Amino acid sequence: MSLVVIGTVAFDAIETPFGKTDKIVGGAATYASLAASYFYDKVKIVAVVGDDFPAFEIEELNNHYINTEGLQVKAGQKSFFWAGRYHNDMNSRDTLVTELNVLADFDPIIPESYQDCEYLMLGNLTPQIQQTVIERLHKRPKLIVMDTMNFWMDIAMDDLLKTISMVDVLTINDAEARQLSGEYSLVKAAKKILAMGPKYLIIKKGEHGALLFSDDLIFSAPALPLADVFDPTGAGDTFAGGFIGYLAKVGTVNFNNMKNAIIYGSALASFCVEKFGTERLKSLTEDDVKARIQQFVRLSSFVIE
Amino acid sequence: MSLVVIGTVAFDAIETPFGKTDKIVGGAATYASLAASYFYDKVKIVAVVGDDFPAFEIEELNNHYINTEGLQVKAGQKSFFWAGRYHNDMNSRDTLVTELNVLADFDPIIPESYQDCEYLMLGNLTPQIQQTVIERLHKRPKLIVMDTMNFWMDIAMDDLLKTISMVDVLTINDAEARQLSGEYSLVKAAKKILAMGPKYLIIKKGEHGALLFSDDLIFSAPALPLADVFDPTGAGDTFAGGFIGYLAKVGTVNFNNMKNAIIYGSALASFCVEKFGTERLKSLTEDDVKARIQQFVRLSSFVIE
Repeated sequence: MSLVVIGTVAFDAIETPFGKTDKIVGGAATYASLAASYFYDKVKIVAVVGDDFPAFEIEELNNHYINTEGLQVKAGQKSFFWAGRYHNDMNSRDTLVTELNVLADFDPIIPESYQDCEYLMLGNLTPQIQQTVIERLHKRPKLIVMDTMNFWMDIAMDDLLKTISMVDVLTINDAEARQLSGEYSLVKAAKKILAMGPKYLIIKKGEHGALLFSDDLIFSAPALPLADVFDPTGAGDTFAGGFIGYLAKVGTVNFNNMKNAIIYGSALASFCVEKFGTERLKSLTEDDVKARIQQFVRLSSFVIE
Repeated sequence: MSLVVIGTVAFDAIETPFGKTDKIVGGAATYASLAASYFYDKVKIVAVVGDDFPAFEIEELNNHYINTEGLQVKAGQKSFFWAGRYHNDMNSRDTLVTELNVLADFDPIIPESYQDCEYLMLGNLTPQIQQTVIERLHKRPKLIVMDTMNFWMDIAMDDLLKTISMVDVLTINDAEARQLSGEYSLVKAAKKILAMGPKYLIIKKGEHGALLFSDDLIFSAPALPLADVFDPTGAGDTFAGGFIGYLAKVGTVNFNNMKNAIIYGSALASFCVEKFGTERLKSLTEDDVKARIQQFVRLSSFVIE
């Protein structure tokens, strides 16, 4: 049994009001697998990098018990590279550079050892590639979580809808939920999106937390109010990774466990933004996570007789 | 012992994507006192109207056990009138008409029978008038809650800061908290605003709920996701009225009771927006409120062992 994470493993160069980085390691699969690794020790990556990608960064993943057999290293090619600059509000950003490089013709290879996949995290990528991964698994996983973004709604809506129809959980932000459904009310948006196939919809609202929808049930999770958001890059991927990692750990998929999974995902995301890139995510202890979860409990609990 | 509410009692004409109204009754004190009346039966209003204000609307307040001895009716003058149009997102609106009328020289009169005031709700008004009300009470109330808005930050910051320094709880929205403090992070904004005097700060975030800050404590309250927001007018006043009405009922002011008070205020606000103006707020039953509170509990509760 395992948790397979597909997504980008890449270089980012990030500018925020707090500073800027050179090329550092990022990518949806990097963040999501690191986050999941805090809860589950059978995390396996499917991704592609060029031979410019440092071997010690792959080792770093292995040190978190992340299996990288499905991480293709393309000789003579360069890794995906994204550069961006966050505005002062940290909620909006400009993309400065996007170099697809190895991602341009990414053909995901699923090693035989990954065929025990029970939990599948489809990190943000071309919906066509996400779909291919589902198809290349001999047995449908018990739970498929899909992250995506407005970019694919703009240029590949048909493919996107097809892939969405194949998954159990979709995670998108509030603007994307509105775009995908054509509804302003998130309640109406959720109803329409759930009718597209997924049994669960998670709407990520950044500093306002997240909403989980399924049938007529709704759960509203808070975000931890932070004095400083140092670098928001990867927060959504970290959230998704923590979410599915927690579910893989508890092993039972239901609404109540999903609620807790969202709290765990949110807790990891709150660490992620404290430093540039994956730095904070690489150095967490079990006690760090426990203490942060207790902060979430204190933050949102109330007792009405 | 009583709860005194000061604010506007007025006419509104409202346009939303769902329709439009002629002049209907509105005003901060109207919404807040109606909301408070669901929890506490000694609510007393301080406000001013013209003789164009219908007597049966005053009776309607009395029917909710709201004392209107402090509601001045100015012969030969007209009531405050506001007309506005909400945009499709219901979060932004254009003011079409503002006629101050009787409000232009409002001099609040505190009847002797109001001097037992233990809880004081300062609805949104000129900070100078809010301050006058505090000064005209012989004994400082046990709890003073103040609502205000960006308008006073733009044109009367000195008066505003003086009044803020005299109250226990300030309620503003997130944009206003940022404007008042000059800080983008709400955690930093809260720290600065609490240093201005209030022991508690409530940041209202509309569809994203509310945050309560006091010392180093934070509580994050959800908003109920709604399929339709019919008319958001008065939601903030309703929230504040429900909040202080609940606290007056329980009689003890502390962080835990404030958390519940925010849930009760949010519940009443969620009713308010279901119909135009005060319509829904006038017809609630105790069971309606109980059921809605249970929705809030289900919405945000999770159990982590």
